[in-house]
Amino acid sequence: MTTSQTTFEERVDRLYRRIHTLLERGETRKAQTILQALLPADQAEIFSELDDDEQLQLLQGLAPETIADILEHLEDEEAAEIAQRLPPERLADILDEMDPDEAADILGDLEPQEADHLLDLLSDEVEAEIRPLLLHPDETAGGIMTSEYLALGQHMWAEKALKAIREWSPDHDYLYYFVVDKDGHLLGVVSLLQLIKAEPKTEVKDIMDPNVISVRVDADQEACAKLMAHYDLTALPVVDEENRLVGVITIDDIIDVLEEEVTEDIQRFGGSEPLDKPYLLTSPLEVFRKRIGWLLLLFVTEMFTGTVLRHFEGVLAQVVALSFYIPLLIGTGGNAGSQTTSTIIRAVAVGDLDVDDAWRAFRHEITVGVLLGLGMGIVAFLRALSWGSSVDIALTVGIAIWAIVTWANSIGSLLPLLAVKLKIDPALVSGPLMSTLVDATGLFIYLSVAKFILHL
Amino acid sequence: MTTSQTTFEERVDRLYRRIHTLLERGETRKAQTILQALLPADQAEIFSELDDDEQLQLLQGLAPETIADILEHLEDEEAAEIAQRLPPERLADILDEMDPDEAADILGDLEPQEADHLLDLLSDEVEAEIRPLLLHPDETAGGIMTSEYLALGQHMWAEKALKAIREWSPDHDYLYYFVVDKDGHLLGVVSLLQLIKAEPKTEVKDIMDPNVISVRVDADQEACAKLMAHYDLTALPVVDEENRLVGVITIDDIIDVLEEEVTEDIQRFGGSEPLDKPYLLTSPLEVFRKRIGWLLLLFVTEMFTGTVLRHFEGVLAQVVALSFYIPLLIGTGGNAGSQTTSTIIRAVAVGDLDVDDAWRAFRHEITVGVLLGLGMGIVAFLRALSWGSSVDIALTVGIAIWAIVTWANSIGSLLPLLAVKLKIDPALVSGPLMSTLVDATGLFIYLSVAKFILHL
Repeated sequence: MTTSQTTFEERVDRLYRRIHTLLERGETRKAQTILQALLPADQAEIFSELDDDEQLQLLQGLAPETIADILEHLEDEEAAEIAQRLPPERLADILDEMDPDEAADILGDLEPQEADHLLDLLSDEVEAEIRPLLLHPDETAGGIMTSEYLALGQHMWAEKALKAIREWSPDHDYLYYFVVDKDGHLLGVVSLLQLIKAEPKTEVKDIMDPNVISVRVDADQEACAKLMAHYDLTALPVVDEENRLVGVITIDDIIDVLEEEVTEDIQRFGGSEPLDKPYLLTSPLEVFRKRIGWLLLLFVTEMFTGTVLRHFEGVLAQVVALSFYIPLLIGTGGNAGSQTTSTIIRAVAVGDLDVDDAWRAFRHEITVGVLLGLGMGIVAFLRALSWGSSVDIALTVGIAIWAIVTWANSIGSLLPLLAVKLKIDPALVSGPLMSTLVDATGLFIYLSVAKFILHL
Repeated sequence: MTTSQTTFEERVDRLYRRIHTLLERGETRKAQTILQALLPADQAEIFSELDDDEQLQLLQGLAPETIADILEHLEDEEAAEIAQRLPPERLADILDEMDPDEAADILGDLEPQEADHLLDLLSDEVEAEIRPLLLHPDETAGGIMTSEYLALGQHMWAEKALKAIREWSPDHDYLYYFVVDKDGHLLGVVSLLQLIKAEPKTEVKDIMDPNVISVRVDADQEACAKLMAHYDLTALPVVDEENRLVGVITIDDIIDVLEEEVTEDIQRFGGSEPLDKPYLLTSPLEVFRKRIGWLLLLFVTEMFTGTVLRHFEGVLAQVVALSFYIPLLIGTGGNAGSQTTSTIIRAVAVGDLDVDDAWRAFRHEITVGVLLGLGMGIVAFLRALSWGSSVDIALTVGIAIWAIVTWANSIGSLLPLLAVKLKIDPALVSGPLMSTLVDATGLFIYLSVAKFILHL
């Protein structure tokens, strides 16, 4: 029993150090004993921290069930990498022990011939479970569903259904069971609790809930995740185009999907294309490819700053001190814009805000912008004076910063909502994009204010 | 049965428009009929889109159970706001119908006297369930757990346990049941499936899993969420300091917590303090307060750019054209830095990276930085030439951008990991902070390169 006062991360980290030390000393058996006593999630966590040689050392002599558990809890790409380093016969024994959906994920990451060869080595029953799963693209309902489910016939008595469930003995505990007609068409859902509460001789169709929410096998995984989160579902049936039950998505798969999607959003928001694999498994060249496009695009946009500066060359030449404030002004504008877009993008993602609220969000941010601009403008004015600038220049800086922050907040609120309107991912209106847009326009505002106040 | 081809968001949006139109026309009953036919999650979604008057109009005459369902599916603050607009007697009827943990959340958001008055209006049984929940701070295990659970005695026979579960009839389907001794100390966990598979006369303690993971009632909600996600738990028992079972956290609460935490991370990453409430419920003044601190801090940091520019005043005065490239160079550096930190921060959050990997991450990013810098440097060199700058200046710009990007990637990888090392939230190393840091140091790099190449 574990009531964690130290966090599980700390505990796992301590265990990792111990196993690492034992492996270094060559005490492999001892390391294996410690590992085997842990929960699979922890085994996988520790395993992925070890280097390649240590992993192979540890795998020697572990039972296929244990390795299957570990691979199931690793990220797909990492599991596939380890699988490739094992002899085919041993890997087949391990795949035999795995959840069909996890085994299919690994096979899907291997070369086609290799995967075919392995499927031949599997027991017929397991092969039959895995093969259909391989047909579906990774990021669809079909790609994340499991084929380990038990469908109940609509005319089954409750007691017979319970007997079937008892005999089925799946790897996991399932709470919900789906009801089908004789051709496999999805009719409803029934919970284990409903079954044990029902009169033994009631037909399943009389206790099931016919309002079952399902998804098509080709539905996008993110849509499935949102659906399950929205309706608080722990299991989601997957059907083919004729509404025949073909699989079930479980909540633990969905938490992984939600995590993936957030990762993509955050990377986009940081101004790069999302990586396809965990960070350390992505080569620098791949990272380069994911980032250079955005960097170039922003570079081109940023070049307008040069155009603006040239346009005001005369002003800058007359009062060189104006240029000292350039980074400060456009930096503050970019920061205010980034604050705004991050808030708006997230509010859209969690459903607090949508296109219809654009006007309200805009008014909100204009107000915030005016307030923030006022605060920052006063600070900047005083700072400029204390730096020995003239009152005119200080006034220019103060007014410019007020206008720039207000402007940054306005476009920071409108652009993500415009993206939603155009059905573009609002996370593309990243912090870097905002700073870049505000840089050129901010310079224009600043130097126009300067021209006016300083009569240049 | 719904197999959604159109997304549920689209369907809900259509229904919202219909209900909105009916309410405008004064056809309240019709609007209510449509609403009542929907699932609670959808009812809440539509409800929160309506304005205050429409909400009140719709609530008139709805059954307390329906309103309870709606309030349960709204965000806490929104539910509390609506609750406050209802007469106390009616609100009490509604709270009576709600899950105790959700009812407690609403009461916790009201004024203490108001909450006390409402508790007195509730049935004794419900009051007894809710009162203890009010003692725990919102963001702890105690704050998100429910007191609706059924503890099984260790010496109960399986058949008696099943009978107890059957008679209990909770609002939700529960799969896992927790086993306690006569003093309520947590001993283990048993699933409904295990109970129906067991021999009727087996004692619960002989089929339960004694390796049950639990949390203390004062544990942080984020730690609970991470624990449940890590171990794929759908229910997490909460115990007091003497290991007595006091509540259960369910997976649907955890998805909300994970969402909240991601929202905080994204807002921090955008360079502001996270908001406490949904965006449109936060007043501009509150938003102002959450943002001004960071904006000022970044402003102070950004002032170093002024210092650097003054230091190189002579260089800038001699070659005015150099200043045209300033925003372009520091902008690109800031963008590269923001790309890096966002990737690193997220890799840390999902556990792909930790402090021990700092050296690997650093080498990774140096390589990426050198490559990106090279690409951007060449582009910048050519662009400067085509803008009519001299070869020397173009070379200065190209080399400077190469050095700045490499530098930005290095500190972009190290700072978040340093934050982790110092036990600070790495999301504080936001995009704006990176741009700001890179601005001053980037200027220094640029003007030093200029001084060297142009022999100034």
